[in-house]
Amino acid sequence: MRTRPLKVALLGCGVVGSEVARIMTTHADDLTARIGAPVELAGVAVRRPDRVREGIAPELVTTDATALVKRGDIDVVVEVIGGIEPARSLITTAIEHGASVVSANKALLAQDGAALHAVAEQHGKDLYYEAAVAGAIPLIRPLRESLAGDKINRVMGIVNGTTNFILDKMDSTGAGYQEALDEATALGYAEADPTADVEGFDAAAKAAILAGIAFHTRVRLDDVYREGMTEVTAADFASAKEMGCTIKLLAICERAEDGAFVTARVHPAMIPLSHPLASVRGAYNAVFVESDAAGQLMFYGPGAGGSPTASAVLGDLVAVCRNRIGGATGPGESAYAALPVSPMGDVVTRYHISLDVADKPGVLAQVATVFAEHGVSIDTVRQSGKDGEASLVVVTHRASDAALTGTVEALRKLDTVRGVASIMRVEGE
Amino acid sequence: MRTRPLKVALLGCGVVGSEVARIMTTHADDLTARIGAPVELAGVAVRRPDRVREGIAPELVTTDATALVKRGDIDVVVEVIGGIEPARSLITTAIEHGASVVSANKALLAQDGAALHAVAEQHGKDLYYEAAVAGAIPLIRPLRESLAGDKINRVMGIVNGTTNFILDKMDSTGAGYQEALDEATALGYAEADPTADVEGFDAAAKAAILAGIAFHTRVRLDDVYREGMTEVTAADFASAKEMGCTIKLLAICERAEDGAFVTARVHPAMIPLSHPLASVRGAYNAVFVESDAAGQLMFYGPGAGGSPTASAVLGDLVAVCRNRIGGATGPGESAYAALPVSPMGDVVTRYHISLDVADKPGVLAQVATVFAEHGVSIDTVRQSGKDGEASLVVVTHRASDAALTGTVEALRKLDTVRGVASIMRVEGE
Repeated sequence: MRTRPLKVALLGCGVVGSEVARIMTTHADDLTARIGAPVELAGVAVRRPDRVREGIAPELVTTDATALVKRGDIDVVVEVIGGIEPARSLITTAIEHGASVVSANKALLAQDGAALHAVAEQHGKDLYYEAAVAGAIPLIRPLRESLAGDKINRVMGIVNGTTNFILDKMDSTGAGYQEALDEATALGYAEADPTADVEGFDAAAKAAILAGIAFHTRVRLDDVYREGMTEVTAADFASAKEMGCTIKLLAICERAEDGAFVTARVHPAMIPLSHPLASVRGAYNAVFVESDAAGQLMFYGPGAGGSPTASAVLGDLVAVCRNRIGGATGPGESAYAALPVSPMGDVVTRYHISLDVADKPGVLAQVATVFAEHGVSIDTVRQSGKDGEASLVVVTHRASDAALTGTVEALRKLDTVRGVASIMRVEGE
Repeated sequence: MRTRPLKVALLGCGVVGSEVARIMTTHADDLTARIGAPVELAGVAVRRPDRVREGIAPELVTTDATALVKRGDIDVVVEVIGGIEPARSLITTAIEHGASVVSANKALLAQDGAALHAVAEQHGKDLYYEAAVAGAIPLIRPLRESLAGDKINRVMGIVNGTTNFILDKMDSTGAGYQEALDEATALGYAEADPTADVEGFDAAAKAAILAGIAFHTRVRLDDVYREGMTEVTAADFASAKEMGCTIKLLAICERAEDGAFVTARVHPAMIPLSHPLASVRGAYNAVFVESDAAGQLMFYGPGAGGSPTASAVLGDLVAVCRNRIGGATGPGESAYAALPVSPMGDVVTRYHISLDVADKPGVLAQVATVFAEHGVSIDTVRQSGKDGEASLVVVTHRASDAALTGTVEALRKLDTVRGVASIMRVEGE
């Protein structure tokens, strides 16, 4: 065992950072044994140095993050600031000055992962980011190491705890979106401005990262189709129940059946109650992975929070420290497959469509004709009506999103169709 | 990228081995890209060379496994023979002759893991065995790498698909054990001699491996308490349903609450239907992990079968090949904590006990006194009876297994207790 400690610089000391610092102190002996050398907190960069930080020696605290990462004696920089800048510049500078990096920054990795990986590779340093996707759930490492000999065809997951809490609440209590959001906010599951969560931006960043790793292909954040869950209604949940389904906000990364392209998307979808993802409750996350040889796998756990995220950061820290001691680096970016990333129109799935229609003979025939003209095959139709108003619920067989979009446009032009009440994709069957 | 191929020797070419060979051939380009060098199947040791092996060049096939692992030019030996010998000698010889090893051999790792790790460490080679526990489910790597910065307190899992199939069948159809076993045999889920599965030997080997990794402590197979599931009855399932539970054969590795010791055990247990493990159906496996920082995680997937096991083997193969190219080794045995491994008597859990008793006044008071005298606190009692016969169902609070055993011995001595119909532990609450 070597005795010179590995020096760790911590960028950010909020909910996650303070927990990382705490565990580094309280579990120092375990970390030393597992790494093969002591690790030492060598500096902590913060914005507000006046805040009391229990257990962190005041002389370690600095507001000059750039100077900290430029010191040259830092072995590993742990970045838990979040956001694009200054995190991007700090990580780049840290690597250029000889440090390996552990980051929990999904937005940055989704946007600039390729560039950061290139810097890390050029300098022979590690860039690890298990905590960037689904908090404590081991996911990046299983995908890029455990399944490295397999062919992943689909990654489908609940990767945002806030929206899962809201949807679970709507499902179990019959609450509307706003009511469920208010409760999530009151309980601290949703931020004051919940946009990043409820509009799917957070999940989209994770989808880009997961798709890139799963398909060995660069997937940019702009490549990810994104639809939030603010328009999901209690009526949608009622429809889902009739189908034996629930509704989840899913991040779905898929290889096309013929292998010619991949897609990545985030949107609410119905999934059967029998699917393992359907029973993921509250703010938990879970990711379902389908591969050629392994078949169906699922990874489940807390997707956020200080301690869970710190667990993932520290797992990476141990790995990166071991690599430094061994003079090695772990797997870097793997983008050799370079598959085309197709837009949403090329996605093939099933759809649940609710239409408000005139209650008169021939409407169903008209509607069915429109579906047929667009090559969208109907699985089931349910018709109900009273007082001259009626509703038609159509569930389709698998069709491309482009074909479905064309169908809906044509349906809206029919005199007998008064409105399209909802369109929801059906996944996981 | 280096162009000299890494040479792989395959020991065993049955269900798993042939699938490993097939994927190495069909996915050769992907493996090359992911490893950074080509991998080449350099030899396949089999017992029966006359069998046709599709896709494997006949000149690679040999019956002399020892000569193959002694060749000296082999980079990685993949051992999928199973059993103790000759697997143990072959792995040892392979490492001594410069190879790293990937094994799927749970029995061997559970029995001789420490010695094999020592040989590997002495020679600076890797010994990986993700496939030894829960087939395709990434578990060894997450436990020893992703959670390397965390403190694992409990690993509780369904790690045997055969018994889960049988118990799931009993649960869903009301079938008895024999009937469900017969169906499992007919469908190929159970072997002609199902002893290793139904008596818990297979799960116990996996529990020893998991406990060792989770607690950084050597846990021998003999340290694992083992109770099969052949005595689980339809009546037990009926009792479980009344409690809102189902019955699973669980492997449970626990750190005592005060951290003073660890335990490992395999036995059937009731778990609440709301627990994620309760909904693991058919021959699937799942492992639930509880740690200080990460909280509750679950890993789910197919626990056996040629393709899933091959997926795990190939993931290890890629990692080991990368390590060789980088001149590094992955994490070896970590047993620094060396915690005492306590016997079953020290395990603390809850119990569901069904007693056949005389239907007369004072019986409950007698029974309750026996529990109290042994320090076992009663949570609920349900009494039912007719025609002079009655049954008492007692559910306890948490108590040590030793205290419960003492209680049951004393109960058997009561005149009014005609028999102890069943004792089942209650987990996951």
